[in-house]
Amino acid sequence: MRAAYMYGPGDVRVIDAPDPRIEQPTDALVRTVVSCVCGSDLHPYHSMKANAEGRSMGHESVSVVEEVGADVRTVKPGDVVIVPFVYSCGVCDFCVAGLQTSCRVAGLAHPTGAEGAQAAYRRIPFADGTLYRVDVAEDDERMPGLLTLSDVYGTGYHAVVTGGVAPGKDVVVIGDGAVGLLAVLSAKQLGAERIVLMGRHTARTDLGRRYGATDVVAERGEEGIAAVRDLTNGDGAHVVVDAVGHLPAYEQALAVVRDGGTVTRVGVPQYADGPIGRAQFTRNVTITGGVAPVRAYIDELLPGVLDGSVDPGAVFDRTLPLDDAAEGYRLMDDRAALKVMLRP
Amino acid sequence: MRAAYMYGPGDVRVIDAPDPRIEQPTDALVRTVVSCVCGSDLHPYHSMKANAEGRSMGHESVSVVEEVGADVRTVKPGDVVIVPFVYSCGVCDFCVAGLQTSCRVAGLAHPTGAEGAQAAYRRIPFADGTLYRVDVAEDDERMPGLLTLSDVYGTGYHAVVTGGVAPGKDVVVIGDGAVGLLAVLSAKQLGAERIVLMGRHTARTDLGRRYGATDVVAERGEEGIAAVRDLTNGDGAHVVVDAVGHLPAYEQALAVVRDGGTVTRVGVPQYADGPIGRAQFTRNVTITGGVAPVRAYIDELLPGVLDGSVDPGAVFDRTLPLDDAAEGYRLMDDRAALKVMLRP
Repeated sequence: MRAAYMYGPGDVRVIDAPDPRIEQPTDALVRTVVSCVCGSDLHPYHSMKANAEGRSMGHESVSVVEEVGADVRTVKPGDVVIVPFVYSCGVCDFCVAGLQTSCRVAGLAHPTGAEGAQAAYRRIPFADGTLYRVDVAEDDERMPGLLTLSDVYGTGYHAVVTGGVAPGKDVVVIGDGAVGLLAVLSAKQLGAERIVLMGRHTARTDLGRRYGATDVVAERGEEGIAAVRDLTNGDGAHVVVDAVGHLPAYEQALAVVRDGGTVTRVGVPQYADGPIGRAQFTRNVTITGGVAPVRAYIDELLPGVLDGSVDPGAVFDRTLPLDDAAEGYRLMDDRAALKVMLRP
Repeated sequence: MRAAYMYGPGDVRVIDAPDPRIEQPTDALVRTVVSCVCGSDLHPYHSMKANAEGRSMGHESVSVVEEVGADVRTVKPGDVVIVPFVYSCGVCDFCVAGLQTSCRVAGLAHPTGAEGAQAAYRRIPFADGTLYRVDVAEDDERMPGLLTLSDVYGTGYHAVVTGGVAPGKDVVVIGDGAVGLLAVLSAKQLGAERIVLMGRHTARTDLGRRYGATDVVAERGEEGIAAVRDLTNGDGAHVVVDAVGHLPAYEQALAVVRDGGTVTRVGVPQYADGPIGRAQFTRNVTITGGVAPVRAYIDELLPGVLDGSVDPGAVFDRTLPLDDAAEGYRLMDDRAALKVMLRP
């Protein structure tokens, strides 16, 4: 089958890879309908150590079930399924509590050997707990919106849920990538009063305004901090979403959060240590967020996608054939595309 | 008047200092009934830069009002009052929301020039918002318990409130000083199931057991971490209180918190940067807590102190005359005393 692999910085190739097959009785074999490139894929695209064997890429897809293992009960061949970016058993205490990313057998701490989503087919471990069946045809026009439920919409929603967004709260979202924009949409859904989007790509921030941003701040650094403070009575915001992951974004978040407020991070931190000392302590700032258990949010977010009351799929501004995945990475890295959908 | 000043590491002296007086119409002049030495006073006791002028010390007291400024309405001469360790106006939005430490005019960010509590008299700025009148005589036997409401009990309570302690939760408290022990008491009050106290001074951990600790772990470092994990199904605890403030305590907290759990810090961080990267992000660990707005908790905690259903005053294991304050610091620094009460 065709599949995208990364071999080093800027080096993505679509190759003929071995077809996956059922390995465990709890596996499903699925055929990709739509996949995409994630902002987090750009981190290795910049910094990955060159590797002759390459790394199978992608973690977001909507797929069709082709075959299931003997123990799979909840999906069957022909079902259209959302594939959340972390596998989960669905029955352990962490899964039941909605923290599927920490699943005791299939979470992030448990490598399964399954390959990436930027491929024609995938083996999905723990299919019963992982896959979310949706009653649509595979040519449904809402496919982009459904695809966001495999990661970016659920991730933006995780930010505002963990951040405690509620009616009357002021929210700042740092980062105008797909996760940042969908954090804006999510903040609006949870009733935030003022939503300030920090970003400087007009096409993106325009979509942010459509999603509910009341203000856009294009400046960065001290200027950006001053602009946000001007918008928030000099105090900063109750909730600040870091949808970037680089240290300066975290530092900026700390500078625009109100005393007693919350910084919630959903951009994968590209640092190990950062400011967490007396300056934050004195102001009673909370740091929360983390890898989003998006499986937990599909029940809540799917109806809006299906009835068209929200349009998270608008974050996809380009669609390419899977064979052009390298071009998709380039477009996103150059900020020429917001988020690229790939169709095998 | 007599007052304790610190001049450098290990150098505390009780001197004749100028009598304070009313300076603003919102001030009160109070006479100290009881004051004490705080664990946080030991930080400058170790690391303060030598200073010939000295620094007025102490921030905890129960006092009697001697005189009030023209605008003071809620207290009058003769009233016994708890003096929270941060002044607060009582009427700004932060005060109303219960974050008096961030009060817009009198909080931590606004130096008032008022002197410390280890003294015979004090000027109290913003008396109406700061002082909490208690209907007791100044020789009341519950004075030690009332004194804990000026800092350590409210601080321990702040830890468990911000940490989200609730029935069924497992809690670890790192540090067997007064704040740690009162965090144990507070966790018990909020219904925690298992309360593990990490400390190695038996007299202190025995008091911790009396306050509700179900387990005591004396080991530190890797051994201590393993012991806590053994007690918590290998997972760590839902809530971990850092009642120390040194970086190793924060690191230990991160090592014994459960995925999706919360580290809440009430020991003043003696560091600026620390681990706050991908390791914490992947596990959805929240970092919260901060300087405690103890004024906010007196309404809730006072009844238990007055009716004797809790005994937070038991953290005071020595009482000395104010003139022996230097000895009080030595006893606490040598861990020969848990917390020293000072009487002018």
